[in-house]
Amino acid sequence: MTTLDVLKAAVAIGPSMRRTADDVDALFERILANPPDPRRRLYEAMRYAAVGGGKRLRPLLVVACSSLFEVPRKQALRAGLAVECVHVHSLIHDDLPCMDDDDLRRGKPTVHCAFDEATAVLAGDALLALAFEILGQPDTHPRAEVRAELVVELARTAGAAGMAGGQMLDLLPHKEGFDLDAVMRLQRLKTGALIGWCVEAGAIMGAAPQELRTGLRGYAHCVGLAFQIADDLLDRQGDQATVGKRVRKDPEQGKETFVSLLGPERARKQAELLVSQAIDHLRSFGDSAALLRAIAQFAVKRDH
Amino acid sequence: MTTLDVLKAAVAIGPSMRRTADDVDALFERILANPPDPRRRLYEAMRYAAVGGGKRLRPLLVVACSSLFEVPRKQALRAGLAVECVHVHSLIHDDLPCMDDDDLRRGKPTVHCAFDEATAVLAGDALLALAFEILGQPDTHPRAEVRAELVVELARTAGAAGMAGGQMLDLLPHKEGFDLDAVMRLQRLKTGALIGWCVEAGAIMGAAPQELRTGLRGYAHCVGLAFQIADDLLDRQGDQATVGKRVRKDPEQGKETFVSLLGPERARKQAELLVSQAIDHLRSFGDSAALLRAIAQFAVKRDH
Repeated sequence: MTTLDVLKAAVAIGPSMRRTADDVDALFERILANPPDPRRRLYEAMRYAAVGGGKRLRPLLVVACSSLFEVPRKQALRAGLAVECVHVHSLIHDDLPCMDDDDLRRGKPTVHCAFDEATAVLAGDALLALAFEILGQPDTHPRAEVRAELVVELARTAGAAGMAGGQMLDLLPHKEGFDLDAVMRLQRLKTGALIGWCVEAGAIMGAAPQELRTGLRGYAHCVGLAFQIADDLLDRQGDQATVGKRVRKDPEQGKETFVSLLGPERARKQAELLVSQAIDHLRSFGDSAALLRAIAQFAVKRDH
Repeated sequence: MTTLDVLKAAVAIGPSMRRTADDVDALFERILANPPDPRRRLYEAMRYAAVGGGKRLRPLLVVACSSLFEVPRKQALRAGLAVECVHVHSLIHDDLPCMDDDDLRRGKPTVHCAFDEATAVLAGDALLALAFEILGQPDTHPRAEVRAELVVELARTAGAAGMAGGQMLDLLPHKEGFDLDAVMRLQRLKTGALIGWCVEAGAIMGAAPQELRTGLRGYAHCVGLAFQIADDLLDRQGDQATVGKRVRKDPEQGKETFVSLLGPERARKQAELLVSQAIDHLRSFGDSAALLRAIAQFAVKRDH
């Protein structure tokens, strides 16, 4: 990609990303309003983690993919909110002292530091449940078959066969033999599956024909991998203040990553190749996929 | 109740309870079979917590209520499995050192003792997600509207407005002014809501008319309260080996309970009154509600 491409991608994605982030924040503020009793501490922790942080890449993916099939934006945002609930849930729990023991996330103290461990466990649990409450409600989609399918796929993605399983793998000692295949499998479970769900959700809500879904799955697979490589590069080379979370923790913990196995230069080239492949998967969609293309480019060009 | 009533209840409930427990175990064993990779540690922890323990009161309630409306047993069992997933999830997380810090549950070491804290957090998360995966699948009910409704109601029950919120309240210091109303509200959130869901699930799956649902809700409310009072009595007066979890922890932690506020004798009388009221709510159902009646009696007459 030339510098011009990067600038174009930034221009293309900026307003959509801000608008989606604002909409997600507004929805979280409304849904997580304080109850009139001491449970408010839990709601405060949920809002602390969920509101005003992150790139909202996952909701943006749902919105971008839904727009290909003329799914109303209001419905796409609700599915985007659900996936962000699952994402924030996993960040809160992964940051716990018994897991990755991180104290900085999205540029501020993690939930167990700002509140306490018990509140962090409960806030993560409640956000996970909230995802399914949102998806199951008629406002998300008028057809109940669609809502039930979204629920099943997201539950599978969050559970033992997906993110929870990926985090389990990541906690086990990374022994010798933890090669590129093992790193890819870990990525697929920990981050790839949820990114895949975002794109799938748009296709499910829009009743996309199978042949288009295959292309979208290819796109999601490439974007997910590229995104993870960019994350590994940021962990290696980024600045903590900009990245908003602790950096250089993977090498400290002796964990193999795309960057440790490939070296930074090959990793960067690989990520760029994946972005081209991702964009190639969108060829059936023409101009309507401009935002999905911009997201793919952004995934590797970001600094946080 | 006379001794004869108690014996009758035990005779009535025994075979149904054993059969449901066996079916739930078999389903868990099948769904949680080990994957062929190191994630198996997570699946082992989930099976350790979920299989072969507990009275399966919640699945039994779903089965008993579903049978009133001729819901096929296979469907009722799947809803029962989902509610047991949520229940076990909450036990694992509530037992964590940062929460109630318990080391004994269902007569064996808690998950974080038998495995480790990180695995316990993930096993709880994965079981919560599994509940919604099971509910959303067509095997649970042919009508997607029914599945989506079950999902929304269970998510609400598990989340911040239900069990997670209840556990948050329970973790806050029980100050003066923690009176019977506060204990009742806590019970409604922590245990009552999930028991209510079990009965509601039968009514939703069986498309029960509203007037019958009102009676069933009254039944669930009374059984839930009676069950909690019996639990408080077991905590005060039971034997750890029989109860299968640490006892006398509420008074140690200075927590108010039904027993501390009412005294054991009044608490026991209150529980028995609630059982009578619960049974009274079933009067429209006649003989078909025999199992629900037996469950109400069992809730207070159990020793574990």
